[in-house]
Amino acid sequence: MRNEHLITAKQLSREDIETVLDRAAEIAADPSAVNDRHADTLLGLLFFEPSTRTKMSFEAAIKRLGGDVVDMGSVDSSSVSKGESLADTVRVIQGYADALVLRHPRQGSAKMASEFVDVPLVNAGDGAGHHPSQTLLDLYTMREANGLDDLTIGIMGDLKYGRTVHSLANALTNFDVRQHFISPESLQLPRSVRYDLHQEGASVREHTDLDEILPELDVLYVTRIQRERFPDENEYHAVAGEYQIDAETLEAASDDLTIMHPLPRVDEIAPEIDETDHASYFSQAHNGVPVRMALLDLLLSNEEGDAE
Amino acid sequence: MRNEHLITAKQLSREDIETVLDRAAEIAADPSAVNDRHADTLLGLLFFEPSTRTKMSFEAAIKRLGGDVVDMGSVDSSSVSKGESLADTVRVIQGYADALVLRHPRQGSAKMASEFVDVPLVNAGDGAGHHPSQTLLDLYTMREANGLDDLTIGIMGDLKYGRTVHSLANALTNFDVRQHFISPESLQLPRSVRYDLHQEGASVREHTDLDEILPELDVLYVTRIQRERFPDENEYHAVAGEYQIDAETLEAASDDLTIMHPLPRVDEIAPEIDETDHASYFSQAHNGVPVRMALLDLLLSNEEGDAE
Amino acid sequence: MRNEHLITAKQLSREDIETVLDRAAEIAADPSAVNDRHADTLLGLLFFEPSTRTKMSFEAAIKRLGGDVVDMGSVDSSSVSKGESLADTVRVIQGYADALVLRHPRQGSAKMASEFVDVPLVNAGDGAGHHPSQTLLDLYTMREANGLDDLTIGIMGDLKYGRTVHSLANALTNFDVRQHFISPESLQLPRSVRYDLHQEGASVREHTDLDEILPELDVLYVTRIQRERFPDENEYHAVAGEYQIDAETLEAASDDLTIMHPLPRVDEIAPEIDETDHASYFSQAHNGVPVRMALLDLLLSNEEGDAE
Repeated sequence: MRNEHLITAKQLSREDIETVLDRAAEIAADPSAVNDRHADTLLGLLFFEPSTRTKMSFEAAIKRLGGDVVDMGSVDSSSVSKGESLADTVRVIQGYADALVLRHPRQGSAKMASEFVDVPLVNAGDGAGHHPSQTLLDLYTMREANGLDDLTIGIMGDLKYGRTVHSLANALTNFDVRQHFISPESLQLPRSVRYDLHQEGASVREHTDLDEILPELDVLYVTRIQRERFPDENEYHAVAGEYQIDAETLEAASDDLTIMHPLPRVDEIAPEIDETDHASYFSQAHNGVPVRMALLDLLLSNEEGDAE
Repeated sequence: MRNEHLITAKQLSREDIETVLDRAAEIAADPSAVNDRHADTLLGLLFFEPSTRTKMSFEAAIKRLGGDVVDMGSVDSSSVSKGESLADTVRVIQGYADALVLRHPRQGSAKMASEFVDVPLVNAGDGAGHHPSQTLLDLYTMREANGLDDLTIGIMGDLKYGRTVHSLANALTNFDVRQHFISPESLQLPRSVRYDLHQEGASVREHTDLDEILPELDVLYVTRIQRERFPDENEYHAVAGEYQIDAETLEAASDDLTIMHPLPRVDEIAPEIDETDHASYFSQAHNGVPVRMALLDLLLSNEEGDAE
Repeated sequence: MRNEHLITAKQLSREDIETVLDRAAEIAADPSAVNDRHADTLLGLLFFEPSTRTKMSFEAAIKRLGGDVVDMGSVDSSSVSKGESLADTVRVIQGYADALVLRHPRQGSAKMASEFVDVPLVNAGDGAGHHPSQTLLDLYTMREANGLDDLTIGIMGDLKYGRTVHSLANALTNFDVRQHFISPESLQLPRSVRYDLHQEGASVREHTDLDEILPELDVLYVTRIQRERFPDENEYHAVAGEYQIDAETLEAASDDLTIMHPLPRVDEIAPEIDETDHASYFSQAHNGVPVRMALLDLLLSNEEGDAE
């Protein structure tokens, strides 16, 4: 993967994914072995939208590798407010950094930007498009809990706009996994993603009701249903309420069910779940550091094959 | 103090305080001795309210120790704007850092947050609550100027809402100090702080007039009276004017009076004081670096007792 | 230059400029030779106005030298919003850093601030005033392309408010250069800059029409004409349209013409120019890193003459 751009999860083969996850596991087992490995490396952070987890874990990742960041800061405090095009912004900032991480509200922006830069660029979310490094940490978390084969996975919530869902669904086609999508009708998977899954011959079923599939699930991946997707508050509450998880919901679940969430959550998972063995969402977030360390290490490793 | 949370100044014994101040003095005398001491350490910065001095001096402190930060950035640019709870935010971010510094507008928030994290958490201001690292640098500054025993200290300004005042007053009960509180009646110490001081048997007197006590003071700690505390502008000006210090005010003061201020100041201290020997507020601010270096060093020192 | 403030390009002699540019060329040729040279150095960033290029390239520069930053962040998230004076802010922050970089909307603010600090302070833009480090990277870019003597340079766009123009015009008087200023009448050079150029005996001509001088130019330095300078939108479009460069414009230009721009651009240079040999504006932006590394290295080099 050296020196490549990472734009969508679709570009990742099973071998690519396993290379990153294996490296992440190695790093998690002995982080001090790499704490000076990318000294003198600067990672450029371009976040045109709010972010906590993704931005901070990329920052922690490069710093845990001995490197550092140069951060564009918020859009208000940058020249973007003067009307500069994204193409110009990335062409300039690539001169300050050895790799770039880009989040931008416009779908397709990361692909476009990558055509203007020579350093590796990682898409950290482009509108309702893709978020492949999130997918890698999701897969890492699933693999740690249950392995990645012969799995039954439920993905629930906002499947229409959720880029983490789109990236994850695509990546899972590389593994022997049954995917169940659970959502209100108005928030079902977009046609393009459904088409991709069909093309890959993935095992896919759609549901509006969690109960009908919950007992079979090894993993339940919950996402937030955003208020702003609904014309009025009442409609939102009617719908959102059906896709919330609490202790009562879980009475029908397997004891080994792993519950994941890309976070932030609002009401989708009741706090009473946090202390159960089902809850994997906080360790999922924490896995962002070793997984992004592995990813950056592979993208930045130099020609002498110093990645071993 | 290794691996503890620092939430209020009340939890600090005289011995704790002296340990930090002694270590700070050691570091100030030879900063280069520690410039690689906490390499590979990341300090998570969570500032939910504006800050210059506190945030920048914590950042300088960890970097002068060889470490680095991961910064949540402003609330607008983080997931907090998506409605995430503080408990979730700190549980996630502790996975990216070895210690956390939290400022939050809600009184009690630091205590609550600390119950969700395993890494040391330092309260850098919780509403009108506490700000213990400010207190440590205040005490360091006093000790450098006058020692910390047999002192007469005046604390003036907004005593009701000023968290630096509350933390300082509590900490001073560990020393042989006479505390005089000078403020308009509407901004006197809150009952809870007065109760704490009484419980500790502290020597405390309250004044509305600086003149009646100024000649006796070794230290005058001035704080800002905030415009927004008053219903109308005129009332503010009437009150604020009486608690401003200029050269004329100081004619009645001891030649050795030390004037402190947690900054920022607006009109409380006239610029003509800045060049006098009384003015300690800028060196007070600068002391934030060695004191916070000492504090972080003690909180982060590992089991092998490497803090000597 | 050790330990000096850099406030305006006027304070730089030809020898000063050549010292910086030579050092920058050395660093650009072998950046790894200096990647630990200013370890333990903290650069304080105080940006009271938006910035991408200047701020990020100073940040990259100090980090490429092994140092780090302490960043005040945006004005909204700092104590400035509490009404602190600039003099107080810089007096405090100099205690956290070994040098300061200041951008502020008020002309003259950098000079004023420098009188309150003991560490070197670099003016990174003071309103319509000066921006000397931009000038150094402009000169570096010109020297790389054409050398700095016997040059014919056109400077076009907003000459009245453009601080990069004012700094550059002043600095160019040190070299054997013919300066042509091209702008609408309402945006011509301010009297003070014209006076300075006259005092230095510079070769200066003013034009409202690019065509009459374009064929003679070795360098064309384009700046943005800001919409907000004009009372109405129509007037802006009428004027701005005449100072835009596209392939057709360049038919009359020399094959060796170098086109520069401090960026961000909006419509002043058509994207079709980007791929031509004329376009130097992106490498100009990238030159900000070695030039600012050289500048910081010279300002921060210690007494043992370790700058060689």
